[in-house]
Amino acid sequence: MIDNLWLIGIGTGNPAHVTLEGADALRNAAVILLPTKGDDKEDLAHLRRAIITASGSTARIVPFEYPVRDPDLPYMERVAAWHDEIARRWIAALGGQSVNGPVALLVWGDPSLYDSTIRIADRLSPKPAIRVVPGITAIQALTAAHAIPLNTVDGPVRITTGRQLRDGGLPQDETTAVVMLDGLCSFQQLDPEGLHIWWGAYLGSDKQLLIEGPLAEVGEKIVKTRAQARAEHGWIMDSYLLRRI
Amino acid sequence: MIDNLWLIGIGTGNPAHVTLEGADALRNAAVILLPTKGDDKEDLAHLRRAIITASGSTARIVPFEYPVRDPDLPYMERVAAWHDEIARRWIAALGGQSVNGPVALLVWGDPSLYDSTIRIADRLSPKPAIRVVPGITAIQALTAAHAIPLNTVDGPVRITTGRQLRDGGLPQDETTAVVMLDGLCSFQQLDPEGLHIWWGAYLGSDKQLLIEGPLAEVGEKIVKTRAQARAEHGWIMDSYLLRRI
Ligand SMILES: C[S@@+](CC[C@H](N)C(=O)[O-])C[C@H]1O[C@@H](n2cnc3c(N)ncnc32)[C@H](O)[C@@H]1O
Ligand SMILES: C[S@@+](CC[C@H](N)C(=O)[O-])C[C@H]1O[C@@H](n2cnc3c(N)ncnc32)[C@H](O)[C@@H]1O
Repeated sequence: MIDNLWLIGIGTGNPAHVTLEGADALRNAAVILLPTKGDDKEDLAHLRRAIITASGSTARIVPFEYPVRDPDLPYMERVAAWHDEIARRWIAALGGQSVNGPVALLVWGDPSLYDSTIRIADRLSPKPAIRVVPGITAIQALTAAHAIPLNTVDGPVRITTGRQLRDGGLPQDETTAVVMLDGLCSFQQLDPEGLHIWWGAYLGSDKQLLIEGPLAEVGEKIVKTRAQARAEHGWIMDSYLLRRI
Repeated sequence: MIDNLWLIGIGTGNPAHVTLEGADALRNAAVILLPTKGDDKEDLAHLRRAIITASGSTARIVPFEYPVRDPDLPYMERVAAWHDEIARRWIAALGGQSVNGPVALLVWGDPSLYDSTIRIADRLSPKPAIRVVPGITAIQALTAAHAIPLNTVDGPVRITTGRQLRDGGLPQDETTAVVMLDGLCSFQQLDPEGLHIWWGAYLGSDKQLLIEGPLAEVGEKIVKTRAQARAEHGWIMDSYLLRRI
């Protein structure tokens, strides 16, 4: 049983993205649940360890393994079954016993953004008190690296995924869109006319890559750079901002 | 002349929102440009000072005063003229001399989100090297305080302003919208049917207020609570998330 569960946003690749609140929470956690492998990349596992050590945390580290998603289930059911199984594994990893003190999980970026940890935590029964510690998202890492504003003056912003962009395109009246979770460089399916792109991969880390320019001119370069980097490192995480100008 | 200008996101009301990178940048800045009044609230000026002190920064603090916006100009021109004037005041505050080392500005939340500092910095001539240090936004403070995800599973999110919401409403196919810069509780103009709201004011600070529920049920309570809190404290900053469910 978990009484207090802390979901700590750790930023997106730079250990210095951690907030003072985040470092403090790591120090005050009794237990940290840490994924061993599965959904994880070696570099990222390494970063998590480094962040815990740097915080001075003396929490007991309890490893758990991510389950594999059942490919036979329809999408939403598959996600739900996967979340249930992860919640079970957290409890099992703790040996089914009550923990004396807060249990913490490190969450990439901010726990609210395209991440399932809050949803998984909501499935625990009995429901623990959940504390969310905000973290720097890939969106902020992207705009910071390019030193650009996210929005036009008072303008709206759309945060979306590669899949949504492929399915729905980019409406003509949309001035700014940030695209995440896009393994397919879905911007290639858009009419590039009037669109500017700011792209970034491995944001915040030493591997950081940045490309920026009119989509018509730099789109192909991004596709190539992405493929090369992915081959070289074995994984990639990238995001981009599209603006009509 | 400024060679290196650092725009440091400081989060939205909790001094512990500051990142390790932010604290480090404050320590390594030679000069910090700090607004005296104008566009500023006393509590916030106090918070800025506390953050600088807590970081251990020994930077020289150089005060500057925000100009007043010219009410006779049309909106976009007024904004541009105001930005130009602020850029001039930064330079004037530095005595027109070159600074030996980085000049820093503290920016509320993240510098990319509904903030003009990057745009003002881009007007400086000669153009300094600009470094943006990401910070926790009001959006993350809102979702963390309510312990909710920003997006639905793989769903898009619209970030928008009170004005945009009044002008354009909330399209039926929009599942999630975060509304900022809304002094008028513009959600009152929406058909509340099927909308859930998560509202927060003074997020991250001890004054933090949270209200959540079906818009039809809690809308009025938010309007009242907001008016009371504003009267009591003399100022208010609030944001909310709307979700169709
Ligand atoms: C599962 S989501 C997690 C997002 C995370 N919670 C956040 O706040 O940024 C993963 C997606 O975030 C983006 N992302 C995360 N880290 C990134 C990085 N360091 N550089 C570029 N994109 C990143 C990519 O679009 C990736 O597909
Ligand atoms: C000029 S914008 C600055 C936003 C800031 N750069 C950020 O990253 O959050 C000011 C708006 O941000 C929101 N905001 C900022 N701080 C807030 C807080 N502590 N609580 C609630 N809303 C806040 C409000 O909607 C406010 O009108």
